Amino acid sequence: MNDKISVVGGGSWGSTLADLLGRNGQNVTLWEFVPQVAAQLNDKRTLAVMPELNLHPGVHVTNDLSEAVSGARAILSVVPSEFVRGTFKAIKKTGKLSDGAFIISASKGVENDSLLRMSEVIVQEIPSLAGKVCALSGPSHAEEVVRGVPTAVVSAGPGKLPEQTQDIFNTDNFRVYTSSDMTGVELGGALKNIYAIACGACDGLGLGDNTKAALMTRGLNEIVRIGMAQRAQAMTFLGLSGMGDLIVTCLSRHSRNRLLGEKIGKGLSLKEALGEMTMVAEGVRTTKSAFDLARKCQLDLPIINEIYRCLYEGKSAKDSLRDLTHRPVTSETEHFKGGEAQPS
Amino acid sequence: MNDKISVVGGGSWGSTLADLLGRNGQNVTLWEFVPQVAAQLNDKRTLAVMPELNLHPGVHVTNDLSEAVSGARAILSVVPSEFVRGTFKAIKKTGKLSDGAFIISASKGVENDSLLRMSEVIVQEIPSLAGKVCALSGPSHAEEVVRGVPTAVVSAGPGKLPEQTQDIFNTDNFRVYTSSDMTGVELGGALKNIYAIACGACDGLGLGDNTKAALMTRGLNEIVRIGMAQRAQAMTFLGLSGMGDLIVTCLSRHSRNRLLGEKIGKGLSLKEALGEMTMVAEGVRTTKSAFDLARKCQLDLPIINEIYRCLYEGKSAKDSLRDLTHRPVTSETEHFKGGEAQPS
Repeated sequence: MNDKISVVGGGSWGSTLADLLGRNGQNVTLWEFVPQVAAQLNDKRTLAVMPELNLHPGVHVTNDLSEAVSGARAILSVVPSEFVRGTFKAIKKTGKLSDGAFIISASKGVENDSLLRMSEVIVQEIPSLAGKVCALSGPSHAEEVVRGVPTAVVSAGPGKLPEQTQDIFNTDNFRVYTSSDMTGVELGGALKNIYAIACGACDGLGLGDNTKAALMTRGLNEIVRIGMAQRAQAMTFLGLSGMGDLIVTCLSRHSRNRLLGEKIGKGLSLKEALGEMTMVAEGVRTTKSAFDLARKCQLDLPIINEIYRCLYEGKSAKDSLRDLTHRPVTSETEHFKGGEAQPS
Repeated sequence: MNDKISVVGGGSWGSTLADLLGRNGQNVTLWEFVPQVAAQLNDKRTLAVMPELNLHPGVHVTNDLSEAVSGARAILSVVPSEFVRGTFKAIKKTGKLSDGAFIISASKGVENDSLLRMSEVIVQEIPSLAGKVCALSGPSHAEEVVRGVPTAVVSAGPGKLPEQTQDIFNTDNFRVYTSSDMTGVELGGALKNIYAIACGACDGLGLGDNTKAALMTRGLNEIVRIGMAQRAQAMTFLGLSGMGDLIVTCLSRHSRNRLLGEKIGKGLSLKEALGEMTMVAEGVRTTKSAFDLARKCQLDLPIINEIYRCLYEGKSAKDSLRDLTHRPVTSETEHFKGGEAQPS
């Protein structure tokens, strides 16, 4: 039998990845925090938020973290980013983490206040995992992966971890590329959600494809600038966890962050918009972290600034768009001509 | 009165740019080759292919190239790429080109056989224009620009030409960024049409957003590799004429190349698909040029290869997709690790 793989987090993405691994013949245990959701996954093999899921019969479902972690060779973290710290605190407390275990982080976000990426949060909680965490990210709506739609993602991390992750996941319909730039892959996956909110706001305002393409392009420019300030490689953002994930999240009808932005664009407040949503829109918290991170790195990033003002200071999307389009135009790549901002 | 600007080519994009310049208070003459179309633009101030156009009353329309070119400070070339050589041959023949005139090329393509970019074709026909040609490109559907939808594009070329182009065009709703990388901007604008055909084929096959995002991302990777082999700068392709234009062309309902691909994906031959179209799909010719250019540069570019086979060798889109997803997966950026392929 294959080594045990533990999927931590039974939301739509976690359950989809557990199902994919089950279909790949892996020995999978899926842990879910909410007992009712775990029971539904176990008994009905599906999720209320994703009825098209038909969880592979080989996937073992549990609500017991200690059981889930015990003896696992790899732990796939797919809880919402705000719960990553608490989950790994709890994993440590179980005392069941194997010495040789490694972590695949598919949670996407930058923690508020600490401004740490998810891999950093994990290592801060369990220092013995240093060098044993990689990231999995890319344009991959769960609703499509579960249907077997061809999808490509990237695994990034130290040493052989990306290749090990590739071996575990790769199929013709779920292609896993590898990268050594974990910082870039994690930041791409996290920050894109901010621009999905911005593109949603464009939809809410009734604007067109040209505007959204401009927002995404100038948005990727901002992602690259934050990334380079954090020692990521510029070329990573040309890849699946950069422009690829940005495109799918900004444009797809499946995207929660885009939907939240659409509500903001139509004039709802953040509280009103969130009140109408059932699933987590990671971009809301990420916008706050990115706003703080940009200030810390002394970067002036106009789109992040405006989305922050819309979400947290009650500015209207219409006023934000006007202020964005009234900025002086520059050279496209002027921010990459200075010293530290050169592509590496 | 402002200096005369001559717009050469009264298709939907040329007419839209002429209208935009007219609204900006420029002194504009719009030349159109087809007498009936010129007459319609002159009398009805609109186009059959774009009824939403209401050409600014200040734009002078002519079918006489000699009159159009005479005394112009700037000539904006917007004819389909296959007619650029013939048009500039004809411009030379008029003998009316001013000594100080410069060219803004908005035609997008790489010439078949010669494999020259449009700026190179222009200078080959009129060598005295060397150093006086710049390119205008970016995510800009005419149907949206004409409605005043906020749009951002990039002007690239030698010396002060990009800034001069910016001065002529820039408004809050049509923002012109500048770049010194004309090669990259021209290649981005031309090559994206190939991937729009590929994304359209995905639509025709009933595939999803994940697949299209993967195609666009791996497609941009191919564009960067061709670009770098031609001494373009990698970072240009992160910009408006790279990923920005790629996104809008691959995903928009306005895109002719995407529509052509959709027909191919549904099983039509190239001839059948073209028979159902009224406007030029530049990507068909560009695919041939790119296929030849890749061979010349000794690059193996799988998506270009498959689209070439679909269009010119009768391979089915379904078989092409299967062959693409059966390729071994690699490091995302492996082709950028060698010497000449490093980002500059």
